[in-house]
Amino acid sequence: MKIERIELLHVAIPLVSPFRTSFGTMTTKDTFLLRVVTDAAEGWSEFAADPEPLYCSEFVGAAELVLEQHLVPRVTPEITAAEVAHRTEAIKGHKLAKAALETAILDAELRSYGMSIGTFLGATASKVPAGVSVGIKNSIPELIADVEGYLAEGYARIKLKIEPGWDLEPVRAVRERFGSDVLLQVDANTAYTPADAEHLRRLDEFDLLLMEQPLEEDDIRGHALLAQRIRTPICLDESITSAKDAATAIALDACRVINVKPARVGGYLEARRIHDVAVAHGIPVWCGGMLETGIGRGPNLALAALPGFVLPGDVSASRRYFAEDVTEPFELEDGFMHVPTGPGIGVDPIPETLRRFTTATRVLYPND
Amino acid sequence: MKIERIELLHVAIPLVSPFRTSFGTMTTKDTFLLRVVTDAAEGWSEFAADPEPLYCSEFVGAAELVLEQHLVPRVTPEITAAEVAHRTEAIKGHKLAKAALETAILDAELRSYGMSIGTFLGATASKVPAGVSVGIKNSIPELIADVEGYLAEGYARIKLKIEPGWDLEPVRAVRERFGSDVLLQVDANTAYTPADAEHLRRLDEFDLLLMEQPLEEDDIRGHALLAQRIRTPICLDESITSAKDAATAIALDACRVINVKPARVGGYLEARRIHDVAVAHGIPVWCGGMLETGIGRGPNLALAALPGFVLPGDVSASRRYFAEDVTEPFELEDGFMHVPTGPGIGVDPIPETLRRFTTATRVLYPND
Amino acid sequence: MKIERIELLHVAIPLVSPFRTSFGTMTTKDTFLLRVVTDAAEGWSEFAADPEPLYCSEFVGAAELVLEQHLVPRVTPEITAAEVAHRTEAIKGHKLAKAALETAILDAELRSYGMSIGTFLGATASKVPAGVSVGIKNSIPELIADVEGYLAEGYARIKLKIEPGWDLEPVRAVRERFGSDVLLQVDANTAYTPADAEHLRRLDEFDLLLMEQPLEEDDIRGHALLAQRIRTPICLDESITSAKDAATAIALDACRVINVKPARVGGYLEARRIHDVAVAHGIPVWCGGMLETGIGRGPNLALAALPGFVLPGDVSASRRYFAEDVTEPFELEDGFMHVPTGPGIGVDPIPETLRRFTTATRVLYPND
Amino acid sequence: MKIERIELLHVAIPLVSPFRTSFGTMTTKDTFLLRVVTDAAEGWSEFAADPEPLYCSEFVGAAELVLEQHLVPRVTPEITAAEVAHRTEAIKGHKLAKAALETAILDAELRSYGMSIGTFLGATASKVPAGVSVGIKNSIPELIADVEGYLAEGYARIKLKIEPGWDLEPVRAVRERFGSDVLLQVDANTAYTPADAEHLRRLDEFDLLLMEQPLEEDDIRGHALLAQRIRTPICLDESITSAKDAATAIALDACRVINVKPARVGGYLEARRIHDVAVAHGIPVWCGGMLETGIGRGPNLALAALPGFVLPGDVSASRRYFAEDVTEPFELEDGFMHVPTGPGIGVDPIPETLRRFTTATRVLYPND
Repeated sequence: MKIERIELLHVAIPLVSPFRTSFGTMTTKDTFLLRVVTDAAEGWSEFAADPEPLYCSEFVGAAELVLEQHLVPRVTPEITAAEVAHRTEAIKGHKLAKAALETAILDAELRSYGMSIGTFLGATASKVPAGVSVGIKNSIPELIADVEGYLAEGYARIKLKIEPGWDLEPVRAVRERFGSDVLLQVDANTAYTPADAEHLRRLDEFDLLLMEQPLEEDDIRGHALLAQRIRTPICLDESITSAKDAATAIALDACRVINVKPARVGGYLEARRIHDVAVAHGIPVWCGGMLETGIGRGPNLALAALPGFVLPGDVSASRRYFAEDVTEPFELEDGFMHVPTGPGIGVDPIPETLRRFTTATRVLYPND
Repeated sequence: MKIERIELLHVAIPLVSPFRTSFGTMTTKDTFLLRVVTDAAEGWSEFAADPEPLYCSEFVGAAELVLEQHLVPRVTPEITAAEVAHRTEAIKGHKLAKAALETAILDAELRSYGMSIGTFLGATASKVPAGVSVGIKNSIPELIADVEGYLAEGYARIKLKIEPGWDLEPVRAVRERFGSDVLLQVDANTAYTPADAEHLRRLDEFDLLLMEQPLEEDDIRGHALLAQRIRTPICLDESITSAKDAATAIALDACRVINVKPARVGGYLEARRIHDVAVAHGIPVWCGGMLETGIGRGPNLALAALPGFVLPGDVSASRRYFAEDVTEPFELEDGFMHVPTGPGIGVDPIPETLRRFTTATRVLYPND
Repeated sequence: MKIERIELLHVAIPLVSPFRTSFGTMTTKDTFLLRVVTDAAEGWSEFAADPEPLYCSEFVGAAELVLEQHLVPRVTPEITAAEVAHRTEAIKGHKLAKAALETAILDAELRSYGMSIGTFLGATASKVPAGVSVGIKNSIPELIADVEGYLAEGYARIKLKIEPGWDLEPVRAVRERFGSDVLLQVDANTAYTPADAEHLRRLDEFDLLLMEQPLEEDDIRGHALLAQRIRTPICLDESITSAKDAATAIALDACRVINVKPARVGGYLEARRIHDVAVAHGIPVWCGGMLETGIGRGPNLALAALPGFVLPGDVSASRRYFAEDVTEPFELEDGFMHVPTGPGIGVDPIPETLRRFTTATRVLYPND
Repeated sequence: MKIERIELLHVAIPLVSPFRTSFGTMTTKDTFLLRVVTDAAEGWSEFAADPEPLYCSEFVGAAELVLEQHLVPRVTPEITAAEVAHRTEAIKGHKLAKAALETAILDAELRSYGMSIGTFLGATASKVPAGVSVGIKNSIPELIADVEGYLAEGYARIKLKIEPGWDLEPVRAVRERFGSDVLLQVDANTAYTPADAEHLRRLDEFDLLLMEQPLEEDDIRGHALLAQRIRTPICLDESITSAKDAATAIALDACRVINVKPARVGGYLEARRIHDVAVAHGIPVWCGGMLETGIGRGPNLALAALPGFVLPGDVSASRRYFAEDVTEPFELEDGFMHVPTGPGIGVDPIPETLRRFTTATRVLYPND
């Protein structure tokens, strides 16, 4: 297989409704896709971060720059997906940009073999339970209405975004309304400090599956202290950007669960390594989401089919976020999502739709 | 004080000789300066990273983007230096870009009071001992010749860059040639792995002041393990990007010395906080360098004059790196560098020289 | 700036009402002010301890002796505030006397630049929420009446002094009368022993912000044990006399909050260092009070405006303690106190009033 | 027994030779004695600190003040020695002044019974091995000459005062000249920092009995870390001011030996409690000295005769320090000192000599 060119396609896709977290509110998915064209097949991937560096330091504009100036120049036409991380390791950080590059090359490579990414990664399930992530709402009734809708659709687990001022009350309201059998967890996206320990402890009574990333991403020690003071299992997200990070956090007893987002950790290969480290230590993992289009959603489902992914992931139906996606929509069936079985990521952009959402294109060439 | 505009000046300044580390080789200092123009005074600063993200994830191109799109839009005309970190904290990462912004505003603010940055930070020395950082050479004789030159110039401490294949031999050669009284330390810039512990232990016999950043920046736990296996005190550099990082590393006994580079940690205010945390824990600090022009060299000398900076820093004379600098050159006197005493950073670009080195200019405006 | 002389002015200022703690009862503020006269500006400070060594080992009489015989002889005319701690470090203890000396010199220095102490320390707020400290009363009704008055005045937080025999009942009474929304904390001033753990645990049900210094000041290990047995966060006061003390207490998990009293720790520079150490460890701090006159109250407000001071401090209005103060009184506005913005500490004694309250004066000279 | 009055006698007694530690140099013992006159017997004690607060915060001038204004007013005529600590516990700190008061009252009380302090404290030996403390010298030959003299006199153990610049060389010189059988230890009097760990580790090869108080007195955590890095047992002196301190230090593994100075801990009753805590934890203790006259030397010998005092103390012959003492001199016999057996402290001032050395007298009265 020989890479001929790598295309960056800027896309802007409307969200069905604004999504609010402790970072802010999004109304459009504004990012770029990568298309790797080779002599054997073509591969697709999606850059997962936002136009603003609010979730992590990466953002769309700088990612394009780093791909064009620093990553793609380290790609040779014959490179394999397994080599990408090593060839680009001198470039510090920029994990999400690297993930996009590696995934597109991996997709092309797998398609040239006719092998699905699930098979390649070691998936053992053909469908995975789907959880849904519920943003911060303007009122409790609005929240209750939304959760009611998701449960009616069949979602297996509800995750509530929380922040100071929107935590005890919404959790209590959901528990009171829907009972203690609903699988419920919360996601703080770094919005709290170690001094909030006593306040967060008050969530203990609601039997949550987990509390995701309460403190700043570099505060591993703080999470370890907090874990001694609350009963709800702490799950790390932003803090874990590599298998090494996972090993450190586990050694310090800073987490009891890990949210694996393939983009955040540099791609599906490192995501599987984190899965391996976690399983070796008896730590359950689940697959997080970043409002992906179908291009990212497909391979996430494959990853979530690995045996250590014992908790439902944020792998919801396409229509949870998009009225119209760049791919065929993923559907929810009895609370489950089917793992794609086609070659590579198992999903393709619909040419006409993609054309409509694309706002600009740039072509890069490997270093011959 | 009211900020009127913020100018980015791209500069390219030739280095006297190529500087080689485990990351690569530089021949030109290629970066940008910030000039903050206010109604009371103007302030200067320098972006410390390189055009390539090899030392850290930041690089010149992305830093200009983040300043223009995400940081300067959060600056209001009346902002004070103390407020910059808080106003920009929603932007994850980008510490070196934030440092440039804060420092230029601080410089303008201090100039408006006629106070030097040394007085503001709490400097207690009027001159500081100068150490020199010696890049990786092609041969031992070349190294010996260079070190001999630096010792003749009066440098108080020698730091050797090391990497696998260039460690025991050069250190032994320098010790044998110049004796055990020379203050000697090594800097690995993340070039080793935990599996190299036994190899690194062989450096113990050379009575080094410290070994800087042997392992990857996110491997705090690895450094703690390594510290149990070698006697040479471990110093962290890349791993410490905030006072919180310092607190964590100290709690895990992962370092016995910290290299404080103001740019890497987001500016002089956070640099002082790291100094405070380190001193409280009995950890000595020293001031690292990033091949700064005089605009960065001046305030670094002021920081190095704080009482916890008990080890000589990488605060060498300007001519170590530049035949001609954008400011009056800093000179070495009997192994010491004088701390600037003028208002603000105490040093100004020479207009004619700056004009010659400037390759482009961009003007940004605060958010009125 | 050149120091010409240092004056000690004994003052005795009537308190509006007797103030009772677990140590005893005060009816007059009996202390001394320092006035540093330089060729450029003059600076003021206040000795914070009492005529009796009941809160700490220092007292007015011995402080005058140590200033005259041991501290001022180490002051040279050209000394800067940043140098005071180093020059006097051979003198063990006597932190409050050192604080008075350093603060008066710092005030003169900042006035010579026209910079406020808030700007110098890094204050980011222009006003700070005011808490009030309520002494031990003769009866619950008397307590309720007093608290009612303070809440009516707008105080944002109530602190009750407690001692064995006056703890559960007053706390319960205040909670029952004023509800769970009132920010409430208790201060034991070392009045308990580790054997009181089960008794103190009964305070857990009242959702207190914190419990201040339950055990003896040297009993760091005891506080760490107690912290494992009660849920109310422990705050240290008397135990923390330096940033190093803070580092040790945090390392032992002996406190989750720190009360920073600048005088107790040797001055505002060390107070900021404690703030820095605490913030790096995720520990909130607040600014304690020692019944200061306006001379001490002004700079305390500036310190309380630093970003780590997230809990309301004991920074009450002047009239809480004094019918007439030596400065213009500080007023409460909507539960907040304004941070002084004038040069130095931002407040001056009123000459005529000062003259009336002064009972003796002594003049000391720096060591020329 | 009824206390009639308490006299303070200032004395100034020439030292045979200047004594230099890391704090400074003394040529005269300048302090005060306490004489408690009762209706049954009179008791004597000595204030152990210096005119300057360099070893601890207490000094002669402030101690007279605190005795006159705060401690003696809490003494009633019928008070017993056992009650002194409790009656004065509201007065924070001032342990050495309290020790002087308690000891003089205890002496009078024991004399009224005809019981020696050795019997009262539980001494089990009639003589104790004597160690000698050797100050910092101007040269190695001078040191060797002095040590040679002490060994010739029969001292059982040599203690060298050390400070940065006077540590490895003098220790090596003494070991090389006098062999490995000499019991040798060093005393740093807080002169080092945690960053000196590697340097202090180089003392390991000299098989020292112990290293006394290398770090600052409040740095218990630092001593614990240092103890993990060096092999020489760490002994605490200044850090231990109470049995509670001893318990904390032992719990943190911050010391393997304790130097018990009765004055530093508030008197002989607390000194015995520290002995009890140490023995219970398997920690050996020894009796330190503070250049006492015979008035302090006598009861120190009695304390050093308790069974846990298994290491030779700084209990040297009077002529080590004084050509003429206020009491009959204590003599060295075959490396041992005899424990006084007379009533109380077992030793009296010689009236004529005392008169000659006394520079002022003050008479205080108990609170009737």
